[in-house]
Parts: sequence; C-alpha cells; structure tokens
Amino acid sequence: MPTRFFDSAEQTVAQMLEALARTRPVRVSAEGSGVHAVVARDLDPARVAVVSGGGSGHEPAHAGLVGDGLLAAAVCGEFFASPSVEAVLSVVREVTGAAGCLLVVKNYTGDRLNFGLAAERARTEGLDVEVVVVADDVALPDNPQPRGLAGTVLVHKVAGHLARDGADLATVAAAAREVASGVATMSLSLTSALLPGQDGDRRTAELGLGIHNEPGAREIEPSGAEEAVALVLEPLLAVVDGRHGAGTPLVALLNDTGGCSTQELAVLTTDVLRALGDRVRLLVGPAALMTSVDMHGFSLTLLPHDDVVAAALTSPVEPPAWPGSSVPASVSTFDPRHSAEPDWGAGARDETVAAGLRAATGALLDARTRLDDLDARVGDGDAGTTIAGGATAVAEALEADRLSTGDPARLATELASLVEQRMGGSSGVVLSILLTAAAGAWTEGADVTAGLRAGLDRVGEHGDARAGGRTMVDALDPALGALTDGVRAAAGAARRGADGTAEVTTTVVGRSSYLREDVLRGVVDPGAEAVALVLEAWATATDG
Amino acid sequence: MPTRFFDSAEQTVAQMLEALARTRPVRVSAEGSGVHAVVARDLDPARVAVVSGGGSGHEPAHAGLVGDGLLAAAVCGEFFASPSVEAVLSVVREVTGAAGCLLVVKNYTGDRLNFGLAAERARTEGLDVEVVVVADDVALPDNPQPRGLAGTVLVHKVAGHLARDGADLATVAAAAREVASGVATMSLSLTSALLPGQDGDRRTAELGLGIHNEPGAREIEPSGAEEAVALVLEPLLAVVDGRHGAGTPLVALLNDTGGCSTQELAVLTTDVLRALGDRVRLLVGPAALMTSVDMHGFSLTLLPHDDVVAAALTSPVEPPAWPGSSVPASVSTFDPRHSAEPDWGAGARDETVAAGLRAATGALLDARTRLDDLDARVGDGDAGTTIAGGATAVAEALEADRLSTGDPARLATELASLVEQRMGGSSGVVLSILLTAAAGAWTEGADVTAGLRAGLDRVGEHGDARAGGRTMVDALDPALGALTDGVRAAAGAARRGADGTAEVTTTVVGRSSYLREDVLRGVVDPGAEAVALVLEAWATATDG
Repeated sequence: MPTRFFDSAEQTVAQMLEALARTRPVRVSAEGSGVHAVVARDLDPARVAVVSGGGSGHEPAHAGLVGDGLLAAAVCGEFFASPSVEAVLSVVREVTGAAGCLLVVKNYTGDRLNFGLAAERARTEGLDVEVVVVADDVALPDNPQPRGLAGTVLVHKVAGHLARDGADLATVAAAAREVASGVATMSLSLTSALLPGQDGDRRTAELGLGIHNEPGAREIEPSGAEEAVALVLEPLLAVVDGRHGAGTPLVALLNDTGGCSTQELAVLTTDVLRALGDRVRLLVGPAALMTSVDMHGFSLTLLPHDDVVAAALTSPVEPPAWPGSSVPASVSTFDPRHSAEPDWGAGARDETVAAGLRAATGALLDARTRLDDLDARVGDGDAGTTIAGGATAVAEALEADRLSTGDPARLATELASLVEQRMGGSSGVVLSILLTAAAGAWTEGADVTAGLRAGLDRVGEHGDARAGGRTMVDALDPALGALTDGVRAAAGAARRGADGTAEVTTTVVGRSSYLREDVLRGVVDPGAEAVALVLEAWATATDG
Repeated sequence: MPTRFFDSAEQTVAQMLEALARTRPVRVSAEGSGVHAVVARDLDPARVAVVSGGGSGHEPAHAGLVGDGLLAAAVCGEFFASPSVEAVLSVVREVTGAAGCLLVVKNYTGDRLNFGLAAERARTEGLDVEVVVVADDVALPDNPQPRGLAGTVLVHKVAGHLARDGADLATVAAAAREVASGVATMSLSLTSALLPGQDGDRRTAELGLGIHNEPGAREIEPSGAEEAVALVLEPLLAVVDGRHGAGTPLVALLNDTGGCSTQELAVLTTDVLRALGDRVRLLVGPAALMTSVDMHGFSLTLLPHDDVVAAALTSPVEPPAWPGSSVPASVSTFDPRHSAEPDWGAGARDETVAAGLRAATGALLDARTRLDDLDARVGDGDAGTTIAGGATAVAEALEADRLSTGDPARLATELASLVEQRMGGSSGVVLSILLTAAAGAWTEGADVTAGLRAGLDRVGEHGDARAGGRTMVDALDPALGALTDGVRAAAGAARRGADGTAEVTTTVVGRSSYLREDVLRGVVDPGAEAVALVLEAWATATDG
C-alpha cells in the first residue's frame, strides 16, 4: 500500500499543474507540449515579468507563487530535475513584453546553465532578459557555490513587488541581486524526503541540508525544538553577523520543508522568536514555501531588515501560498475574569427545604456503594462516589448555614456552584446546567415546576439527554410531570421512571450506547436511581 | 531522540499561544491564569462575538482563526481535552458586548456540556449567548451524535462574516445553524496521529476518522490518491445527495489533517475536482484547517452551494490561516512556442572555415577514446563520447552543406543549435552559451575575438567556469588572448593551457572540485584538451 497520496509518480507534475490551473488565475502549458509551466493569466507587457523555476518537488515554489505581485511564470522540471532550455525559453517568450524579463535562478549547475542559455537565446531574439542567481545556503562554508534555498522566495517577493510597481528591468534586477546577496539560509531535518513513487527508509536528523534530499552537512540529535533552533541559529548567525554586524535588525523566514505539523511550526516560531529576541523586525511565515517534498524539517532564512525591503515583503499579493508576514511584538495578555463565588446563604431560609435537602443528601450518601455497584455493571463503577461527592458538598454547606433554602433562585445558584466544583465528571456539569437554567427561570418569576422544566430543557439541549436514554432524565422527566401533585407524587413517578430504565436496552447517547443489550437488561441507571432516592427521601422528610 | 519539533509536551499549548500572541493582532490569557485562550485585539461590542474552541491539537482551528471576519476568540483546552466551564465563561465575559456572543461548538459531550454550562451561566450574568453545535461527520451513519469535524470552520467563516457585517445575534446564529445542518464531512488517513510527547507505532490507513485519533470506521488499503478520494466520496456523496438531491451544486473544503505534503494536497485537489466535475462551485483550501496533530490524512467537507453562503465564504478575512477559496474552472492552457530551427546554410560560404571545421571535427572524433580515458581518471569517462556526439553533428551538417561557413554569426547560431541538441550533458549547454552569445556580439558588429570573448564571459556568468578550474576555459581563455596573432598562436596558447590543467589540483567548481589532489595530478582536463585539439587541427588545415 502506498504511504503517500500520489497516483502515478510520472503524472505528479502534470497533476500539480492541473490543480493550479483549475483553482488559480493561471494558464498552464498544453498537455503533450513537452513543457511544464505556469503563466499568470493577466500579464501587463509594460511590467517586468519575474520568472523562476527549476526542478519540481519544492511546491509552492515556484508554480504556486505565480500571480499578481509575485511571479509572472514558473518553469517546472520533473522532480528535482532542471527544466530544459527549450522549456525555459518558451516561457520567456510567453511572458516577456517591452519591459523585459527577470529570471530568478537557484544556484544549481543545471538550472544556471539551462536558464542561462535560454536567456542568451532570448536576447538573440530581441527580448530583454536578466538573470539573478540565488545562493543563500550557509551549510557548507567552504563551498564557493552555495545552493539556492528558501531565500529565493524573498527574492521573488521583492522583485515581484517592484515589477508590479512599474520599476524597469535594471531596477528590478538590481534589487533582486541585493536581496540575493543578503539572504542566508540554514536548514535542519528530522527525516529525509521520499520522492513520489519512492518508498523505504528515511535518513534521521541532519543539519545543513539542501532541497534535493542530498545528505546534510552533519548528523545531529537535537533534544527538541528549542535545541533544533539553536543548532540552526549558531552557524547562521555566525555568517549573518559576520557579514552585516552583530545585532543587525533582521527579516526572518521560517520555512517548513514539507513535513511539519501546524503545532510544530507554532512551537518553532516561539523558539525562534525567543532566541532572536527583538532582532526579528519582520517574520515571513511560518509556512511551507520551499519544500523538499515531505522532508520533516525546517529552514530559517535571515536577511538584514530595512524599510525598502520591508515594504516590498509586506505588500499584498494574489497567490494564496504566500503566507504574509508579521511584525513580532511582545505578548499582549488579558486576565480572565473568573467567576465570583455565589453570595452564600444571602437569601431567606426555609426549614422544610432544609429538611428535604438534608434527607436527600443523606439518602445519596447511604446509597453510595449500591450506586457504584449498579454503575459497575454498565459503566466505570464510580457513579455512587461521584454523586456522593456532590451530596457531601451540599450537606456541608447546609450544616454551615451557607444555603439560601428559602430562596429557590439563590439556592439553585448555590447548589449549581457546589455540584460543578465538587461532583466531578459530566454529571456535575449536567446538574449544574439544570440548576443554573432553573435559577434563571425562577429569577424571572417562573414557578417551581416551570423553572425545573426550563432546566431540564437545557440539559436536553446541551447534553442531548432525552427520556429513554438511560440517564437521570428518565426519572426527572416523569417526576416533573407529577410535581404539581406534590413531592410524594413526583417521587413515585421518579421511582417508576428509574425502575423502567432496567428495561431500556438500546440507547443512543451516553456511555450506555456502547453496551450490548444483554449487559443492560435488568440494570437500573444509577443516575435515574439517584433522582428517585432524592425525591423519596425529600417526600418522607417533608411529608410532601 | 524526539521525532517531532516539540519541547515539553506540557508546554505546547502555551507555546502555540505565545507564537500567536507575538505574531498576530491578538491577546492571550495571562500565564498562570489557568485559562488558555486567544482574543482578537480590536473588538467592536456592537458586533456579535463569534467564539469557538475545544481541545487543542487541531490548529489552526480554533486559535489560529481568531481575527477580523472570523472568530472573536478561541478557548483552548489541553490536547484533545475540552476547556473548563470557567475558561469558556471567562472568554465569553471578555468578548461579549451588547450584540451578544455565538458559541460554535463541535459535537463532543465534553465540549457541549462545558460550553453549554458556560452559556447558561453567562446568561444569568445578563450576557446574550447562543450556542450552535456542529456535527458534520458522516462516517458512522447510525450514530445520532455525529462528531464535529472540519465543517466547523465553514460555520466559523459564515458566522464571522455576518457578525462583521453587523447582523444581530439571532441572524448570525440562524445562519450558523443552517450551515451546520448542511455540512457533511468524511475523512481518511494513511497513518494515525501522535500527540506531543508520544512516540511509537501509528495505525495504518483508515476511513472515517474523527479528530481525536480514535480508530476510523474501517481499515482500508487505497492504491493511491485517486482511490483514496473515491473511498471518501462514495459514502459522503450518498449522504449529501440523499439530503439535498443528486447534482446539487457544492462548496467543497479539502482539509489536510496534519501530515500531507504540498505535493500530495495538489494531487488530491486534482483528483477531487476530477471526481466531482463541475458540481464544485467553490473550493476552500486545500489547507490544514482542522488538524489532528500530524495525522497523515485529509478530510473532505461538502455543503450545498448558494449565493449567500458563497458570499460569506469568499469575503476576505484577516487571519492568514484562512486559505481563501477558488471557483474551480476548466484548465486554461498556452501552447509553448518552440524554437524555430536555424535557417541552415542561409549565409555565405568560406572554404577555409569549412576546412578548419572539417579538420577540427576529425581530430575530435579521432581523440574520442583518449578523451574518454582522460575523463575516466577524474570523472565518469564519457567526455570523448560526448564531444564526439557534437563533432559528428557538425561534420554531418558540413557535408550536407547546411553550415553558413562564411557568416560567423549565422555559423555560430547553427553550431549552437547542433551542440545543444546533439552533444548532451552540460558541455553542450556551455558550448551553446558561448556560441549563442558570440553570435549576438557578431550580429552587432564585434570582431571575431571580441565575439568569442563575449561568449566566454557568458560561460563564466552562467556556468561559473573560470580560468584555473580544470575546464575548457583553461584552454579557451589563453587561446583568445593569442588569437589576434592567428590561429596557430591561439592553438599554441590553448595547448599550454590544456597541459597546465594537469598541474591544477584544487578546483572550486565542477565535478573536479570533489576529487582529491593525488587523483587530479598529471591528468589533463579533457575539455581543455579538446579545445587544444580543435585549434591545432584548424591551424594545420588552414595554415592559420
């Protein structure tokens, strides 16, 4: 079974171009033409056409960067293979108007020669073509021909910005060369890449890689993201500070080489910004811009910051693959306003209600083991303990005279707070929803039954617990129906409802929905049982 | 060694929030507050605040979607764990003004209860709060509580759009419910996810997954991207067509669940658009929007298309994580204009030049084995064969009287075409660059030497071959210096230059740069040797 979402490896470049052609304002080279290329749909011949390209496998570079404010066209070779001279030349012919064309080329021999010869031939055809080579890699300090890496897209952005602004070819080329001479990039991977159609082992962590899956400068064993960032920054800053002076303000580009999750990119961003402090005046990304197929790694590109470069890098562009940029700032926070405690016991007292509550909590504490046992047959066996937690909290508050037993709305708010905090699990939240909504209804003048009904409705809405679901609702719902006839009647209805849950063997919500019929049969739902116990105890104690 | 770019697993949520806080116009909950949340910096109390959240691990959902036109705030639990009622409530307090607040909740019990209770409590505090639950999963058709998946972000977008436009809470909530009831999502993965701090094996391909790494509805073995798309579309379209009718125009969201490369996403896009034809009237993504950390998979969300939804989904928003959308169109192509053949032999003839060329090509063909042998000692042993390919082509053209021997510019263009097409490798391109540039210079009136010098300069520029590099330049450069004294003098200079390459043991470009000194010593560079042979033969044949 394939380990990636590819079809035929040979078709991958054509499929990628088709995706662009169907979703973006571009034209692609006709099938069977022997050329793979993407050209922006609306080109102004009075604007310099910025063209890039090279082997495929680095998407969105370069095909995904074709569009207003970035590239006029991209010439795409096969994976990791330079496009032919004829392919480059045909694209130059397609996009070059009176203003001329700038070819932005990554520093690989094949790309340099093929784009170079295409430029020479285009010139003999009367086209005005300049070539800028990007060689931003700093992984191999003794190599006089550094590789072109993610810094290339910053050259695209600056050149594309100036071209759109109407700058002439000499100006665009000069600015592109200036950026190309300023960018420095260092990359790190946890695994090497696999091309479409390839399968097999990947190399482990390396520092200083190119974009064609060649081995990195050295193997590493970073302990985590922070150390990975430090490993990249040490040689990178040595070069950047050596060239431009320590403390030079910087533009940073954090590039995903293909395999990073969004979560990892966020962690890397934090680590980069912590490490560089306020030297980073502009951050491009994090984003996948110059990938090496699915290499699980990142590269960091640094460029001295100045206002002209910043203006060019921050102007909006049409291609959605351009991730935009941000000006890193200090963290702005807010202090969450936590809930105030209820005004414990601020309302009236009612001895009957207090007696009912006392009896109910007592009954629940007495039934703890039995409820746990019931739960053990259909769940995780802690229902009695959970309920006892809430009952204990209520009993303690009652003894401490902290409950407004004579003021239903206040009492419900007090009880809601207790069960939410002390009962635990979802039952506490469900009961708190019921009590909170009832308190709201009572505050607005509803009678006892209507308030509880409002609460039960909210439980249905938020918890989706409905009658017949083997939950406390199976006792509460009939009890409320009978409550106008007194607590004794409600208790009776609750008891019948609770007992009936033993016959409910197919449920659609809650954990019981995962259980087999023969497991459920004959087992009363512990939540419904608890409701019946509460009402029975209340009725007995208050002669309700 | 860790296999991902994380630091402490426990710190990951805080680090992700720090990244947002430093790079985006948001405020985050103060450290140590017990709450993880992101709030947009500039909130208008006269606008409905659209709030979402849930467990972390789905970034950019939801924290990365906070900003103008999308979410007013996101409440973030730990990885895959619902935020507390207090956390949700504190955020609702922070962002809810006179216009109220809409909570968009994915359909998981914990989220529903905690957001639900927070809503109830917020209401008792006088805040106007509505809750919309999204349950777009269609993987488990018998489940009455479908999971909330990537369709949630479409609800965000529509609600955020209307809220920004000033719609009241009832209108925003109704529109959000309408979208929530219309979205249907199906997902497929090649591997399951690993949370930060986890390591170990991943499950293999599954269809119908949620976003919390629970096993999918069934294991699958797709043969590639196209079949993966078909596996997702079959049950998804059954639901969508069943609900809305076959052929209903659709909005599609192609979501990366975390581990797809840009290349795979492009292939999947093509396969989805091919499979759905012109039913897709609007495509959101492809992009990572609702991830399951690094799950290597994708989900496809479909929603009936109408103009109101389309307007809401296409309006620009501030958060860069929103990928924008496109209206899929048929493929627009261009026909690459290939180069015309040179006008073979259209120029004058010169018997001396013809004699020189004939002798030179003969000498190169005679030297084929010797040049291959030289190359075998320092390279891959095919230099003589490569050069012979070019020489044969030139000799054949000469015999067929297709060369303008009496017109230097035309001749150079003809030879450039021959060597580019028939010589192969980078040598053919290098020689073609030289000849093309020389032709250009000659067309503009340069003398023979100046034209060749211009060509050599271009070789230096595009190929970075300079004197001392063990290349043909080591013979060409001195030869050009002597050419004003005749071909014989140039041949002598070329011979000395070629012989001198045997002493060059440190080079910085070309393949020789990878070789050890003791390997290079005493071996003449075959390219330089070929130049000397050409000039010696030419001089002898023409008595130059």
